[in-house]
Amino acid sequence: MTAIAAPIDATRVEAAMSRALSLAEHGPAVGDNPQVGCVLLDGDGTIVAEGWHRGAGTAHAEVDALSKVADARGLTAVVTLEPCNHTGRTGPCALALIEAGVSRVIFALDDPSERADGGAERLRAAGIVAERGPLAHEAEELLRPWLTSARLGRPFVTVKWASTLDGRAAAADGTSQWITGAAARQRVHEQRARHDAIAVGTGTVLADDPSLTARGDAGELLAHQPVPVVFGRTPVSADAALRRHPAGLIEVGHRDLATALPELLSRGIRRLYVEGGPTLASAFLRAGLADEVLVYLAPLLLGGPRTALDDLGVTTMAEAHRLSIRSIESLGDDLLVTCRPDARSSSHLTPHS
Amino acid sequence: MTAIAAPIDATRVEAAMSRALSLAEHGPAVGDNPQVGCVLLDGDGTIVAEGWHRGAGTAHAEVDALSKVADARGLTAVVTLEPCNHTGRTGPCALALIEAGVSRVIFALDDPSERADGGAERLRAAGIVAERGPLAHEAEELLRPWLTSARLGRPFVTVKWASTLDGRAAAADGTSQWITGAAARQRVHEQRARHDAIAVGTGTVLADDPSLTARGDAGELLAHQPVPVVFGRTPVSADAALRRHPAGLIEVGHRDLATALPELLSRGIRRLYVEGGPTLASAFLRAGLADEVLVYLAPLLLGGPRTALDDLGVTTMAEAHRLSIRSIESLGDDLLVTCRPDARSSSHLTPHS
Ligand SMILES: NC(=O)c1ccc[n+]([C@@H]2O[C@H](COP(=O)([O-])OP(=O)(O)OC[C@H]3O[C@@H](n4cnc5c(N)ncnc54)[C@H](OP(=O)(O)O)[C@@H]3O)[C@@H](O)[C@H]2O)c1
Ligand SMILES: NC(=O)c1ccc[n+]([C@@H]2O[C@H](COP(=O)([O-])OP(=O)(O)OC[C@H]3O[C@@H](n4cnc5c(N)ncnc54)[C@H](OP(=O)(O)O)[C@@H]3O)[C@@H](O)[C@H]2O)c1
Repeated sequence: MTAIAAPIDATRVEAAMSRALSLAEHGPAVGDNPQVGCVLLDGDGTIVAEGWHRGAGTAHAEVDALSKVADARGLTAVVTLEPCNHTGRTGPCALALIEAGVSRVIFALDDPSERADGGAERLRAAGIVAERGPLAHEAEELLRPWLTSARLGRPFVTVKWASTLDGRAAAADGTSQWITGAAARQRVHEQRARHDAIAVGTGTVLADDPSLTARGDAGELLAHQPVPVVFGRTPVSADAALRRHPAGLIEVGHRDLATALPELLSRGIRRLYVEGGPTLASAFLRAGLADEVLVYLAPLLLGGPRTALDDLGVTTMAEAHRLSIRSIESLGDDLLVTCRPDARSSSHLTPHS
Repeated sequence: MTAIAAPIDATRVEAAMSRALSLAEHGPAVGDNPQVGCVLLDGDGTIVAEGWHRGAGTAHAEVDALSKVADARGLTAVVTLEPCNHTGRTGPCALALIEAGVSRVIFALDDPSERADGGAERLRAAGIVAERGPLAHEAEELLRPWLTSARLGRPFVTVKWASTLDGRAAAADGTSQWITGAAARQRVHEQRARHDAIAVGTGTVLADDPSLTARGDAGELLAHQPVPVVFGRTPVSADAALRRHPAGLIEVGHRDLATALPELLSRGIRRLYVEGGPTLASAFLRAGLADEVLVYLAPLLLGGPRTALDDLGVTTMAEAHRLSIRSIESLGDDLLVTCRPDARSSSHLTPHS
């Protein structure tokens, strides 16, 4: 057993955690595993090694950092998420830290998923100080989609739509190309590449025969392709463009979102990008199943019947879905308004009065 | 006749015009007369007097500046708008400048209204150099509502509405208080005070019985009260709050916007603030009669049938009303998006392809 080192100065621990968070961001934002970063500190609080997780099947952040030092005995590990105690494609990090002989482990967040499996407790049982450290809020922001899926047992859901300033998604005759300009459309492709799957309703498949690939400026396929998921009863036809999608195709075959979402999670889909159309987007919102809302607003007015959302189950103002606006960006002539459900009314089931 | 002075350095003329524009802004932004500023320069380009117009019945900017010097002979007058040659409640400025003996008059903008009546020509006929100077664009921006009304023979029209992010003005049951928060509502009161009249349709009068006064934070009446104008056939009832409006009440009595607007101008209404409801706002937009569009967006979603705009006469995307966004402001939790019709489609009559 290693001797317990004196605690490191709080300012240095916070700087180390900040560095670990930056390292975490190097990892992939998609896939089943969280983005995690780790730094190892000597007794003075000086960083002696850094690591991060590069995606499923590769070393976890702690193991990556440990691999950079000949002797980790007595070091402090600062890591953005509670070390796992789970044997998946790689062994448990808690065990790796114990065997390496670190004396202290400081993590920003408890891991709510089953991969944690008592990681902190196992460290403590081995005589290692294992404790919650600084920057929990920042770590929570970084891992929000992953944590949400772990906590709720369903993918983190981003609902996105494009509309005119007066809330229309198409003109009366159904034409809608292009409501938004090139910069906004390019951003949509980048967002697709940051999700595990894209959801559309059968209505959009029938109307638009979309390819739903994530493409770059020149039309080239981006490295990560989210899998398309079609909600609804109508089968996707044999000659639909979606049948040629490089990531395959998931046909849900029904309309029951509450049943479908946990099944998607069990297939490793943690981040779902709901692209519409209006019927499907409204169904997600109505059910309180939107964790993030992205509204692309074009400087156009159309009037008429084709609204970007239809019925949200709201009959009176007190039941309005309240959002909090996180950012507003100009993309060419368009605006992108990024929102989250407001804590005062995260779903229509808990209306704000 | 005065001797013609050598031209003043262009940089000093521009500085003088910039000062004249600042002075012009001191004048009232409402009422029948334009905001005008004037400075008098000596031969070196040094400002020797300043003036601005304080509203109908008071001295014009040029006369105000001339009143500050004992002897204006040989001076250069730098003025934001072509001097008038019109006898209204005050005499023509062109004559005042001639009699004062200035040698040169530099103005930012030609006056398109009948008050000009050849002001520049009259100066030239008297041997005075009268010429267009710098900062025409800035002067045009300052006087845009006034110039628009002068050029088009109707009030400058601002169409304003408040909606949720999904373009709804009310919940399904008609409740709409309050879509926007206190900061946005206060801004609306300030905007009312910067217009000569506020327009609503009879539907809004019946539904809301609004007072349509311009009020401060504490509910007190602001100094300037725009007159309410009700569009539509339905008479305003004898006990309506509008009947107690401090600025009186104009009942149009019909729905014909193209006829009503020149009549409003002839009553001295140069700036009209169209506050809705959806039917009237849509009618103005459909007719291409919106010179400025203000959209207050609340971070709410309502869905359902009650959109903030209804039919805009658009059947296909190529006919969309295109706007250009001039600014986006956060007001409490709400956004204010200020737009103008895009030059590519200033009305539905000239759709952009
Ligand atoms: N502006 C935008 O951002 C945007 C984005 C995408 C599409 N669009 C446009 O939207 C139009 C299509 O509109 P849409 O509303 O028909 O498309 P949609 O939402 O893609 O599809 C609607 C269909 O989805 C199925 N569905 C699955 N789950 C459902 C649920 N929980 N509740 C209700 N229905 C469910 C139903 O089909 P089944 O009968 O098969 O069950 C329903 O008819 C197209 O013109 C497209 O271009 C616009
Ligand atoms: N969100 C907002 O910014 C906002 C602002 C104001 C009001 N509102 C809400 O809007 C609702 C009222 O809606 P609304 O659309 O009925 O109100 P509205 O637009 O105020 O009134 C409609 C009426 O205006 C008359 N009208 C005058 N000129 C017209 C024209 N050129 N074309 C068509 N109609 C013309 C017609 O009445 P006649 O039959 O008398 O001719 C018509 O029925 C209320 O619930 C109010 O609270 C919302």
